[in-house]
Order: sequence, then structure tokens, then C-alpha cells
Amino acid sequence: MPRNVTQKIIAAHLVRGSLEPGSPIALRIDQTLTQDATGTMAYLQFEALKLPRVRTELSVSYVDHNMLQSGFENADDHRFLQSFAAKYGIHFSRPGNGICHQVHLERFSRPGKTLLGSDSHTPTSGGAGMLAIGAGGLDIALAMGGLPFNLKMPAVVGVRLSGRLQPFVSAKDIILEVLRRKTVKGGVGKVFEYFGPGVASLNVPARSTITNMGAELGATTSIFPSDAVTREYLAAQGRESDWVELLPDDGASYDEILEIDLDALEPLIACPHSPDNVKTVREVAGTPVAQVAIGSCTNSSYTDLMTVATMLDGRVVAEGVSLGISPGSRQVMEMVTRDGGLLKFIAAGARILESACGPCIGMGFAPPSGGVSVRSFNRNFQGRSGTKDAAVYLASPETCAACALTGVITDPRDLGMPAISVPLPGQFLVDDRMIVPPAADGAKVEILRGPNIAPLPEGSPPPERIEGPVLIRLGDDVTTDHIMPAGAKVLPLRSNLPAISQFVFHAVDADFAERAKRLGGGFIVAGQNYGQGSSREHAALAPRYLGVRAVLVQSFARIHLANLINFGILPLTFVHPEDYEKVQVGDTLSLDIRGLALGQTLTVQDRSRGLEFAVLPQLGSERDLELIRSGGALSWASQMLEKSA
Amino acid sequence: MPRNVTQKIIAAHLVRGSLEPGSPIALRIDQTLTQDATGTMAYLQFEALKLPRVRTELSVSYVDHNMLQSGFENADDHRFLQSFAAKYGIHFSRPGNGICHQVHLERFSRPGKTLLGSDSHTPTSGGAGMLAIGAGGLDIALAMGGLPFNLKMPAVVGVRLSGRLQPFVSAKDIILEVLRRKTVKGGVGKVFEYFGPGVASLNVPARSTITNMGAELGATTSIFPSDAVTREYLAAQGRESDWVELLPDDGASYDEILEIDLDALEPLIACPHSPDNVKTVREVAGTPVAQVAIGSCTNSSYTDLMTVATMLDGRVVAEGVSLGISPGSRQVMEMVTRDGGLLKFIAAGARILESACGPCIGMGFAPPSGGVSVRSFNRNFQGRSGTKDAAVYLASPETCAACALTGVITDPRDLGMPAISVPLPGQFLVDDRMIVPPAADGAKVEILRGPNIAPLPEGSPPPERIEGPVLIRLGDDVTTDHIMPAGAKVLPLRSNLPAISQFVFHAVDADFAERAKRLGGGFIVAGQNYGQGSSREHAALAPRYLGVRAVLVQSFARIHLANLINFGILPLTFVHPEDYEKVQVGDTLSLDIRGLALGQTLTVQDRSRGLEFAVLPQLGSERDLELIRSGGALSWASQMLEKSA
Repeated sequence: MPRNVTQKIIAAHLVRGSLEPGSPIALRIDQTLTQDATGTMAYLQFEALKLPRVRTELSVSYVDHNMLQSGFENADDHRFLQSFAAKYGIHFSRPGNGICHQVHLERFSRPGKTLLGSDSHTPTSGGAGMLAIGAGGLDIALAMGGLPFNLKMPAVVGVRLSGRLQPFVSAKDIILEVLRRKTVKGGVGKVFEYFGPGVASLNVPARSTITNMGAELGATTSIFPSDAVTREYLAAQGRESDWVELLPDDGASYDEILEIDLDALEPLIACPHSPDNVKTVREVAGTPVAQVAIGSCTNSSYTDLMTVATMLDGRVVAEGVSLGISPGSRQVMEMVTRDGGLLKFIAAGARILESACGPCIGMGFAPPSGGVSVRSFNRNFQGRSGTKDAAVYLASPETCAACALTGVITDPRDLGMPAISVPLPGQFLVDDRMIVPPAADGAKVEILRGPNIAPLPEGSPPPERIEGPVLIRLGDDVTTDHIMPAGAKVLPLRSNLPAISQFVFHAVDADFAERAKRLGGGFIVAGQNYGQGSSREHAALAPRYLGVRAVLVQSFARIHLANLINFGILPLTFVHPEDYEKVQVGDTLSLDIRGLALGQTLTVQDRSRGLEFAVLPQLGSERDLELIRSGGALSWASQMLEKSA
Repeated sequence: MPRNVTQKIIAAHLVRGSLEPGSPIALRIDQTLTQDATGTMAYLQFEALKLPRVRTELSVSYVDHNMLQSGFENADDHRFLQSFAAKYGIHFSRPGNGICHQVHLERFSRPGKTLLGSDSHTPTSGGAGMLAIGAGGLDIALAMGGLPFNLKMPAVVGVRLSGRLQPFVSAKDIILEVLRRKTVKGGVGKVFEYFGPGVASLNVPARSTITNMGAELGATTSIFPSDAVTREYLAAQGRESDWVELLPDDGASYDEILEIDLDALEPLIACPHSPDNVKTVREVAGTPVAQVAIGSCTNSSYTDLMTVATMLDGRVVAEGVSLGISPGSRQVMEMVTRDGGLLKFIAAGARILESACGPCIGMGFAPPSGGVSVRSFNRNFQGRSGTKDAAVYLASPETCAACALTGVITDPRDLGMPAISVPLPGQFLVDDRMIVPPAADGAKVEILRGPNIAPLPEGSPPPERIEGPVLIRLGDDVTTDHIMPAGAKVLPLRSNLPAISQFVFHAVDADFAERAKRLGGGFIVAGQNYGQGSSREHAALAPRYLGVRAVLVQSFARIHLANLINFGILPLTFVHPEDYEKVQVGDTLSLDIRGLALGQTLTVQDRSRGLEFAVLPQLGSERDLELIRSGGALSWASQMLEKSA
């Protein structure tokens, strides 16, 4: 039977299960990546498995999130990560070497391989034909231990591209168009696979912009075929030998088809506060802009930045605008500097930020109060920028540059500039000296721990009856940024659970942590697509630390659902979605879980209202069931590995 | 009578007083500068004077401190400063344009003129023959209002330079040698004027490294003559017309002479935690280094950075070291990029930080716990880096580069490299487009205020009897960093007094603010050189806000003393220094100030111990007396200006 690219890679890595969409499968993982904000916890979890060395083909530990270093915490974490990597067989990408996804794409992506990363934008490497999936840190820890990754077989959406992008329209506009049509909930349980005649016109960095921001669909991942374009990219990275061809079979089918005519596409922009609130740039043109930020794992390739440099050349940033540029990697920064792009940025008055995630995760460069910030990034959730009442728009680098020059939201086509074409370099500047290979003998390496590296708490099995108050009741599309904020104040605490738990739901309900602890835990209630956005497992780990034993919603986002199970929080959906309306904050709920089984509904009693309603535990497999029963994946996995040893 | 350079400039600007050292004088101020951390408050104070426009020849508002922008506060402040500058006739240097001192030296310094800046490193422009003095923001506000600056006529120390610096020995080593000999207390009430045959061998940026870090001596300022070297520098900046010759008269005398033989000087390093704890680099060579930071207003000229680039060329930063480089200005960054220096930094694995103060003020790049950080900066007070137990060393850029390459403290002469000579560019790249001139008609400009700009509290005259507990008792050399910490958490609150006051003495006594408020204020007691370091007036303003009415010490640092008087806090010294030993924390002190007069001792009663001791109010003039009696300078100045209107 003819297969698409997704099915081919999954079939080649299948440890358990079948290709039937929705059925539980387990995949062999070839590569893992972590970044520093999720990595410290992932490595503490790997350490608990008591293995001498990782069991993957390649594992890489990046530092790109916590780079402001306002206190000792970040530098301590970097040192911990570096020593841990040396000891356990992991490559370490030093701070300053770039954003994990950009560097991984450049130096390690391999068509046909699987990559599991503790960051939701791991699908970036899907631009090079890799099945690259974001997951919680614990899943990465287990994968490093050689255990397969468990998920439901995704449906495959075929996105058929035809035509060719017009001047000043770029890859970002393609993914914004997909988001406009499918929304942030439209990708749950799906892989977006791009095909069709338009694919060949997109180079690998452009493809990766699309697969990167495919995360905003809630998709399992996004992927492009591995073709001549992929080969050319890998060859230019000095890695042609990593190339294999990977195309959909003739007659391969998709569970769903989306058609996009590139010729007809125009510059798009995601308006506050959701990546799917997409309009044409011209619809919002003229809105005054306070700042512009260009960079992030979505849009900071050599091509992106040289295009921006050409637009800024000889001009100067508008008087009321602060323009920040964060190059995606040391390779990009070095080449853009060599080729004169950086000089043009500086001359135009841009602020050159470090090669790191930076403003995209609220790590500096926060906009002024109520200010409009136009960014080439992938997320614009409220408050993520560091300024609660800022209005963040997401657009292509070309649109961002246009806004920086005019001081108002501007369609780049309206500047009257000639079309710009920056070809992919025939040879990238390859210098891996900032990627430290692991020590030959890890046993001799001492792990350096600072005072911010708090020991992991132990999981405990749940009681027979989960009882407690509804601690908070939220609407649809709650993001992991709402649950566990990031930003400059909170991110440095990622390896310190007691400290970071104080910030759970802080932006929406500042008393939540205090109340949860005082009441001895309880339930979280919400609407649809609960836990969308970043893969951060602290959005499960920290509520669990505060005593939350169950989350009751209309539907879950995929990664967060897995994280809840991993940390022993029971994920429940309303069997009758309208029951959501009946439950109120403060109600005492009670749930007997002795009958917990796959596909079996349970009954929640609302003691405050004398109501009962049916809920369905969102457990996809016997394994999920075991995780909940053991109180979390870590103790479960330790037992597994002990048995197999 | 033959005069030295200092006396010439003072004589030409004298509004009141004589050149007799120690006598009160008032100086006409030609130029002012502010940075954003002190500027917001200075401008709020200027606003209280109700003048339509500044009355100086030139006033410049820089943004270089609060550039991390972890929240809305910084960007709001930048916007406030930009709109304020436009309205009141002030030039605004946009964020990204560089560090105030570096930019001011490049673009505005003028031999023979006076400059008053709300930053203690304002003497940087002394390298170009300017009398450049750091002061509190209120003094700057008054100077912008056309009022003269009040101080005591300083003694002039002549530093006679002979010989020539040897390879890998540079200007930083000269000022470290002065600090080694004179200590951080050795400059109080003095101007350090450099002369002699060695002067001609130092270019203006090298001279400015010396005058910049002369602030660490506690000196009023430091200055070089304006000679052919100065002319060459100004010509290369396209400003030859700003040059005037300014040399000491033949036979000019100095109150004290210091001789330095440049030939004999070797690389020096200030060890933790004071800039005068100076040793030769070889004495501490081999100490493992965790990070290296190059930049700051002391050492980030074109020459400095190109020298470092040459040392790093083709090499890579040691595996355990994080190297951060912050170029001093947009001009420096642009030229270093154009001339290939930046490419060498990136290739060597350096992290390129923004053109701003950055790590020097704890604004990011904090070292790991207990880590050694070697910096080309000017201060290494404990905790200033953002990491309380870090060990910060201060050295030349050459020594810093050597440490980055080897991973241990290293004398650059021991690398075996050939001598490096980076000549001053014949023509600097001049582009002032990021310096916004004021609006022609300020009346039309609206000032943009964010929620972090809190209104100024009003001063009130002191009671007849100051009574209260000793809130804290400290030793010698307490810095303004101890009194009012800076760093990434606290600096954004500079325009918000109620919020920032919570952090007074936070690093040394975390309960101080709470206790002071609970007890209704009281006394601060300390040893010698109280208030050294940064000029921040919040070190007076915030204790005043907490109810402190008097500070009782063995001796004061100059700028802080002025700030105390400016904000209506009575500065007292022990007539018998040994009485300091008798007073203890918690003692109730009582002081009748009805007899307050110049040069008159008062009697403090220690009611808890039944002791009495004599104290001398440190008031240098009738004006000081009036300030204390009016409860601060602002209401006093408003009255003055009203009378003169």
C-alpha cells in the first residue's frame, strides 16, 4: 500500500502498534534534544533512571532560553548541563551557539530519523524530512534511556502547495494561512505533511519556518519530504552523506487535504493574542508600532536576516520604534556578519540581541505598556512578551522590517522596494567548536550542581477517591504560559520546583498557589484545548506539587495531556461538554477511581450542588493507566529498566 | 600665578568662591548628561522646577542601564525619557546607541568645558580635557535649570607619567596602579590631573579609561590636558573645531605629586571585592576562571576591542569559560564589525551582548555560584555582578582576553603572542542618526508616562529634635551598592520610590526596609568612606522615604554626602572617631538640631546607654544649611528660581 512520508518514518520506527489513526503506538527515538529551561529537569529525571550513558544515536543539550543571567541560577544551570552532558554521552551546545532548533536543523537534522525534543518547536527539523516531535522533559529522559515514545497514531493532513511565492511574501505567510484556516486547535492528533508542486520552490530554512510554527496548530508535528532541495541544504552544511531521499509513494493518500495556492498568498499577520487570529497585513496597516523583534527559532535563518538587512540598508529605524534582532545561531550570526548584514543592522539603529530565544519567551526586550510589538516569532499569547497589556503581532521578517522602517504596521509590498532574493549559500560556514562532545569516560566527570538545582520530589500513587475543591475554572485555549508562566523572573527557577510552583496561574489568578496549598490541592476545570502552546512539563509538575490530582476539561492539547499523565495527574474530559457550565469554582468534587480502566467513564459527584456527571479519563493505553496508578512515569520507568537489566 | 588645567577650568567657570582647596565654590555647568537609571528621577525633579527648557549649552539623555527589559518598566522609562527630552530641549541617545560615557566622549566632549552627569563615571570625558563630574540626579536637574553646581574646591593631585607602556600593558594598568597606591578613599576632595612626558603616548580613549576609573578613588574627577593628541582624536571624530589647547602653565603646581614610570608597569588586577585590592596578574595567575566580560564605559573603545579581537583571532574560548563582549557604543560596534573584529569574536565563541552597561551593573551575565569572573570593568563590589558569592576581578582587556583563552587567570605577556598595536582610526565612522535632537517647539510634545513613573514625594523640614533607633551599624567603605542595590531586579524601579525602597540594604540586612518603616525611621551608623561608589541618589532618596533623618559616620564619600543633603538627610561625623565603637544597633539616639550652624558641633544622646558624644554636621556652606532646613534641595531650588524669575 502506498505510504506518505509520515507513515514511512513511523513504520520504520514502530516498536508497538499499527498505522491506524488514533491507535496507541510506540516509536523508537533516534535523537533527542533539550534546551536549558526544560533540560535541567529532564536530566534530573534521566539521572533517576541510574543509567551510565544515553542510549540514543545522538542526544544534544542546548542553552538558549535562560541567557539573561540576572542571578546565579542561569549560569549554575549551564554549568550543570555542561557537566551532565560530558558524563552521560550528550553533546553540549554552549551558550552563544544559538537556538536549539536552528542549530539542530543546521548540524544534526537527518531525513527519515526520529527526533524527540523537550521543546514544542522541535518540529523545526521536519523541514529537513525528519519526524521531529516536541514532548515533555520526562519523555525525553525516557527516550535517552532507550525507551520508545508513546503516542496515538496521528492522522496525516496533506498540505498541497502549488504556485510560487510572490515578492515580499514568504514562508511565514504560508503557516499563517494554515493557522488562519485550521486554528490553534485544528492540528490535535495530526501530522501536517507538505507536498505538491510548490514544495520544490521552498528551501529548507523556509520549510522549517513552516514546520516550526506548525506547533501552533496543536499538531503532533509537521514535515516536508526529503528531496533535491534537502540534499542541497545538507551538502551546503557539509553533510550530504546524511541525506536520504524520502518522498511520498505514488498514490499515497492523506486523511485530509488542504490546498494552498502560493501565487495568491499575500502578507499575513497574527493579531493579539493568538497565532490563529490572522488577518492580511493591509487590514491592520497604519497601526502605530512601538517595537519590532526579528529572530527566534521561526525566522532567523541566514536568508531571513539577509533579506531584512537588504531592506534596512541605508535606512534608519523609525524614531518611535525599538528594533531588536536576535540571530538564530552562531553560524547565522557569523555568516550575516561576514556578508555585511550585521553592519547594515547596526547602521540602521537595530539593537543586536544575543543568539538565543530572547524576547520570544519574554526573556528581555519587553514592549512598553500597551505598546504594539510586531515580531517574526511564533507565539503572541497575552503577557508572554513580559508586558501584560502589550499587543503582540506575528508576521514575516519582511513585514517586520517594513514596520520598523515606517513606525506603523506596513505591508512590505507597499514600500515600493524592488523584490529581494537571497539565495541559499552554496556552502555554509561550518564550525562546530562551540558544540562540546561528551567525555570518552563519563565515570570520571563530576556533575556541578548549584543551589538552584533542587532534588526531584518522589511521585506517590493516587488515593482511591480523589476529593477536593475546584481550585480554578478557565475557558477555552488555556496555554501552558497561563498555567506556568515563563519570562525572565520565572524561567530561572525551572530546576527548583518549590520555588517555581509559587507562579502557577500567576497571571490569571495570583492567589492560586497559596489557595491550592491551603486547601490541600483539588481540581482544575477548563474548556477546550487545555494546555496548548509550549511543551513545558512544569505546567503539570508544578500543579501536581501544589496538590492537584485531576484536571477536568472539554478537551486537551496533546503534549500537555502526556505531561499530566507523566506526573500522575488524572486527565478527565466531560462526556457531556455542557456539564462544564454546571461546575463552579469552590465546588467540592469527589471521584472514586477504583474502577479506572481504558475507555470507561467515571462519575464525578459535585457535592456542593448535589449533581453528578460522567467523565472520561483521557488515557490512551495500558501504559498510561500504569503511569497514573504508579503516581507518575518516573518510578514506573525505573521499575521497567530494572526488570530489563 | 601659573595654574594647572583643573584650576584653569574652575577659574573660568567660578560663580562663587575662590581656588583655595576646601573652600565652598559654585561652578557654572556647560553640559549635562543623564543615563536612564538616574535620568527618570532627575527629569521628574527638573519638571518640578517648572521651566520650559533646559538652560545649559548641551544636555543629553542616554539609555544604557535598563536595557534587559524583563517587564514593561524599562521600555516605559525609555519612552518617558524620549518624550521628555523632545519637550525640554535635550538630546536623546536611543537605546542601542551605546554607553553614555563612551558616546559623550566620542560625540560631545569639549576641552575646557564643564560637564555634570548623573553617573559616577562621568569623568570619562576628562580624557578629552573636560572637567567632568559625577553627581546626583537632583544636582543635574538644578544644573539643567541653570543653577551652578556647589562643591568644595578640590585639591589637585598631579600624576606625573613618564616612560612608555610596554606590550600587553595598557591604560587600565595605570589606573589600577593609582588605586593600589591611593585606595578607594584616597581621592576624596581631590582632582587627579595627569601630566608629564608619558601623557603624549596615551590616546584619548586610553586617557578616558584612566579618568573613568578615577571615580573608584573617590575623587571629584580626573583630567588630562588637551593637547595635540586630543586634537587628533576630535579631528577623527569630525569635531576638530571643538578643540582648544589646554595645558598646565609653566611652573604650575599641584597639591600633591604621584610619579608613575610607565616602563616599569606590568599587568595588574583588582581582586575581590574592591577596586583597590590590586595585585600583579602573575601573583594570582592560574586561578580557574568561569567567565570573562569585556566592555563597559571603562574599556570598550575601538582600540580596546580590536586589540582583543586580534588576541582571539583563530583561537577559541576555553571550554569552561563564558566570554561576553559588550561594545561601548554604536560607533565602536559598527567600526569593529566593519573592520572584522566582531567576526573574530563570534568565531572564537564569544557572546555578543548589547552595546550597554550590561554585566558591569549586574544587568545580566551573572557568574555562576562561587565563580571567578574577570572583567575589564571598573567595579567589583560584592554582589554587584548579580551573584552574591562570585569572585570578580578587574583587569585590562588584554588580561581578560588571555584569561578567556586559557581558562585561568593569565598575564597576557605569558601567551607568547607578538605585541599588538591598534592605531587610533584616522577617521571614526560618524553617524548621529540615533541621537534625536529636541523638538523645535517643546510645548507641543506630550510626555509619555507609564505606570512605573511614580510621582515625587514632597520634602518636609526636619523636626527640632531628631530621635529614633540606630537602624543599622556598618563598617568602613560601605558602597551605594550596599545601600541601594542595582541589578536586574531593582534598577527597573528607579522611577518608583515606594517600590524601590523595599530593597534598601537588602544584600546586607534583608529586613532593613520593613524594620525602618515599623520603627518610624531612625539613624544609620557607619565607619569611614560611607557611600563610596556609584552616584545613585536613590541611596539617599530611598532611606529618606523609609524615615531616615540622619546618618552618623566616621567619614563620607563626596557624591553621597551631597545626595544626603539634597534629600534633607542630616550628615553627621563623629568628632571622636572612637565613639563609633560605643553606639550599637537598636540604641535610641536623640539630637537637638535647633543649634544647627556651619562648623558647630552638636551633641547626640544615646538614651539606651546614657552616653553623650559630639558630632559635626558635614555641611560645607550656607546653602547646605538651607537645604537641610528646607527638607531638601528641590523645594529650596523652586523658591530660588521663583525669586529670580
